[in-house]
Amino acid sequence: MTIVELIKNEKAKKEIDVIAGQEKVTPEFIINGILLGEITVPKNINRQLKNPCGVGSGLKTKVNANIGTSPDCASIDYELEKMNECLRAGADAVMDLSTGGNITKIRENILKHCPVPLGTVPIYQVACETFGRGKKIIDMDPKHIFSVIEEQAQQGVDFMTVHCGVTKKTVEVLNRTKRLGGIVSRGGSFLAKWIGSNDAENPLYEQFDRLLDIAEKYDVTLSLGDGLRPGCLKDASDAAQIAELKVLGDLVLRARERNVQVIVEGPGHMPLNQIESHVKEAKKIIHDAPYYLLGPLVTDVAAGYDHITCAIGGAIAASAGADFICYVTPAEHLRLPKKEDVYLGVIAARIAAHAADIAKGVPNAQKWDDEFSKWRKALNWEEQQKIALDPEKFKSERGKLLPNDPNVCTMCSQYCAIKEEK
Amino acid sequence: MTIVELIKNEKAKKEIDVIAGQEKVTPEFIINGILLGEITVPKNINRQLKNPCGVGSGLKTKVNANIGTSPDCASIDYELEKMNECLRAGADAVMDLSTGGNITKIRENILKHCPVPLGTVPIYQVACETFGRGKKIIDMDPKHIFSVIEEQAQQGVDFMTVHCGVTKKTVEVLNRTKRLGGIVSRGGSFLAKWIGSNDAENPLYEQFDRLLDIAEKYDVTLSLGDGLRPGCLKDASDAAQIAELKVLGDLVLRARERNVQVIVEGPGHMPLNQIESHVKEAKKIIHDAPYYLLGPLVTDVAAGYDHITCAIGGAIAASAGADFICYVTPAEHLRLPKKEDVYLGVIAARIAAHAADIAKGVPNAQKWDDEFSKWRKALNWEEQQKIALDPEKFKSERGKLLPNDPNVCTMCSQYCAIKEEK
Repeated sequence: MTIVELIKNEKAKKEIDVIAGQEKVTPEFIINGILLGEITVPKNINRQLKNPCGVGSGLKTKVNANIGTSPDCASIDYELEKMNECLRAGADAVMDLSTGGNITKIRENILKHCPVPLGTVPIYQVACETFGRGKKIIDMDPKHIFSVIEEQAQQGVDFMTVHCGVTKKTVEVLNRTKRLGGIVSRGGSFLAKWIGSNDAENPLYEQFDRLLDIAEKYDVTLSLGDGLRPGCLKDASDAAQIAELKVLGDLVLRARERNVQVIVEGPGHMPLNQIESHVKEAKKIIHDAPYYLLGPLVTDVAAGYDHITCAIGGAIAASAGADFICYVTPAEHLRLPKKEDVYLGVIAARIAAHAADIAKGVPNAQKWDDEFSKWRKALNWEEQQKIALDPEKFKSERGKLLPNDPNVCTMCSQYCAIKEEK
Repeated sequence: MTIVELIKNEKAKKEIDVIAGQEKVTPEFIINGILLGEITVPKNINRQLKNPCGVGSGLKTKVNANIGTSPDCASIDYELEKMNECLRAGADAVMDLSTGGNITKIRENILKHCPVPLGTVPIYQVACETFGRGKKIIDMDPKHIFSVIEEQAQQGVDFMTVHCGVTKKTVEVLNRTKRLGGIVSRGGSFLAKWIGSNDAENPLYEQFDRLLDIAEKYDVTLSLGDGLRPGCLKDASDAAQIAELKVLGDLVLRARERNVQVIVEGPGHMPLNQIESHVKEAKKIIHDAPYYLLGPLVTDVAAGYDHITCAIGGAIAASAGADFICYVTPAEHLRLPKKEDVYLGVIAARIAAHAADIAKGVPNAQKWDDEFSKWRKALNWEEQQKIALDPEKFKSERGKLLPNDPNVCTMCSQYCAIKEEK
C-alpha cells in the first residue's frame, strides 16, 4: 500500500510523526496535506530511509541536489563523495542522474548510503542501454522503458522524473513555437526525438496507467518532468511550456485517483518579473501538487555563477509557492560538477529556501534569524558560529583576518557600531 | 556650477552624451532625469573622471563596491589592489571607507587611480581624527565635521554619505522602538551617540544648508545615509527606519532647490516579501530620487555567503525600482574583505543588477542574454565565453573538466540535449 492508502485505511505510518516533528506541525496537518495531494513523502516501500522528508504546501521548502556520472567522468567512489558533500551541506534529497559507467551499480551504492530520499530519471538508463546496444535514441523500446522503471522501483528509488508531458500534441506546439533555445531537458529531447521519428505517442503518456501500476506497487513518487522547459529567458512562459504543464496538471488528477504520490517539475530560465505570477498560475494548473523547480535562473549570461542566479530565482519562486527547489552548481552549463561545486550549490539553494520560508510564513522560520541576530548584537561569536547556516564557513572566513580585540571584527575594529552602543 | 545648473543654463556637459551613449537613451532623457532629480551623475568638479555614470530611473542599475582600511588592516597598496579587483569585476562606482592608517593619503591614491565615481563617508575621518586626538566620539566638533567634508570635496570626492536623518527626533523614535539589532550603521551610531550625549541636534541636519553650500561648490552628490537602517530581519520596516526615511525625503527637496544632486540610501536586512513594497513606498517618500541599497539581505544566518543573500535581495529591490546597489562580500559580518571577496561581491551584485534590469525593462537589457543563448544553442563555446558575464571564470570552470567531444560539456557528454536535436 502507498502512504496515501495507508492513511486512508487509518494505518498511520511512523513517518507522519517524524515529519510532523521536523516541521513542527501536527500529524493531522501532514495527513490532510497528503490526502489532498498537496504534500508528498517520497519513500519507496523497499527503502530503509533514515531521514525522510515531506514536500509541499505549508512545509519548509526542500532542497534537492543532483549528482551522477557522465560518460566523460564515471567513478562510483567520487559520486559517493559528492553525495556526502550534498548531505554535509544540508540537502533534503538527492537525485542520481548517472549516465556513465555501470549505472545500476552506482545507484545501488548511492541507495545503500543515502539517508535522504533518492530520485532518478529512468529514461537516462534506457538511453544509455540503448546506446550500449549500438542503437540510437529513436530505437528506444517502450517495453525497455517500463522494465527499467520497474527495476529502479524495485531497487528502492523514492522518486522518479518521468517526462509524461512530452506528447505528440505538445511537441507539435513546440515545433510551431519559434524557440531560441529549443529543448534543453535531456529526457525531453530523447522523447521528442523518439516521438517525431516513430510517429508514435510517448509511452509514458500513452501508458500512464502502467506507470501508475509500478508507482503504486512500490509507492514511488512520480515527479512529472518538464521536458519542454525553457532553457533561456526568451523561451520562458511560451506556448510549449504551458501546453506541457496543462498535460501534467491532468496527470496529477489521474495519479491521485490511484493513490500515487505526485509532484510536478518546473523551469528552468525565466525573467525575474515572471516568476511570481508563473508559480501562482502553475500551482493552480497542477491542482496544488508540490511544485519542484530547477531554478529558475534569472539571467543566461552568468555561467560559472549559476548557483547565484538560481538562488535569486529559487528564492522568489519558493516565496511565491514553489515547494521543492533543485540546486544548480557553479559548474552548470560548463561541465559535470565536482564535490566543491556540489557543496556550494546546496548552500546557495538552502539560502534561497530559507529566505523564501521566512517570506511565505513557514511557522518559526524567522526564529532562527532572530536568535542569530541576538548573538550578533551581543558580539558573541561562538554562539553565532554554532547556529550559522554553515558553521565551518563562518569560522574559516572569520579566521582569515582576526581582530586585535576579539569582541569585534576587522571590518570596523574599534569603530564597531554595535560595540559603540554598549 | 553643478551639472544641474549647467543644464539649466543650457551648457550641456560632454558627460551627458557619454552617459546617453552608455545607456543607449537620448541625451534629452538624461537631461530631463537630472532636472527632475531622478537621475544623478556623481562627479566632482575637481575630478578627472574617466568613466562617469548615471544613476537613476530608466537607467541600468549600477553597482558600488566598498573598499577601505580598518585599524586592524591598513595598507595603501592592498587597497589599490582591491580597487583594481572591483574594476576588473565591473563595478560602476567605488567607495573608500577607510578608517585605518593615513586616511587622507589613502583617499588621494585611490582618487588618482580610480576611473569610476568615488564615494566616501566623511564622518569616518572625523571619528578617526577625534580618536587620534585622544578624544571620544561624543567629543566630535561640528566645525571639524564640516572642515573634513570640505577637505574631501576639494580633494575630488564624487559622492558622500551624510547621515542627516539621524536627528533628535528620529533617535527618540529609535529609543522607543524595541529593536533587536539596534544601530548597525557606523556613521549612524557615531551621530546617535553624539546627539544623546550632547543633547544637541545633528550638525548635518541642523546645518544642512552649510552642507549644501559645499556640495554645490564642488558638485558633490550627497548620498543621504540611512544611519538607522535595520541590521536584522526583525527590525526591518520599523518606525525608526521609516521616520528617518521621511526626514531624508524632505532633505531631497531642499537639495533640489539648491541644484545639488542627491541620492538616498536604504537597508540593510529585510524579509524577502517586504522588499518590493518597501522600495515602491520609499521611492515615493524620497520623491523618486535615486535609491541606493546595501542589500537588502534576506536572511541573517548566512554569514560567509552574504554576497548571495545580498544578490537575492538586491535583484528584487532593483527590479522594484532601486537604482544603485552596494555589493556585500562573503566577508561581511566576519572581517574586512580581501581582494578575492571584493571580486566575488561585485560579480554577485552585477548578476542581481542585470537580472533586475531585464525585469524592469531597461532598454536592451535582455539582448545580452538572447545573444548568449544563441551561442549556447549553437554549442559555440568560444563566442559564449567572449560575452559571458565573467569570461575568465567561464573559461577556467569549463577547463576544470573538459569533454572528449569538444562540442559538448562533461555534464551530459554525448547525451547533450542540444546536440541531440541537430
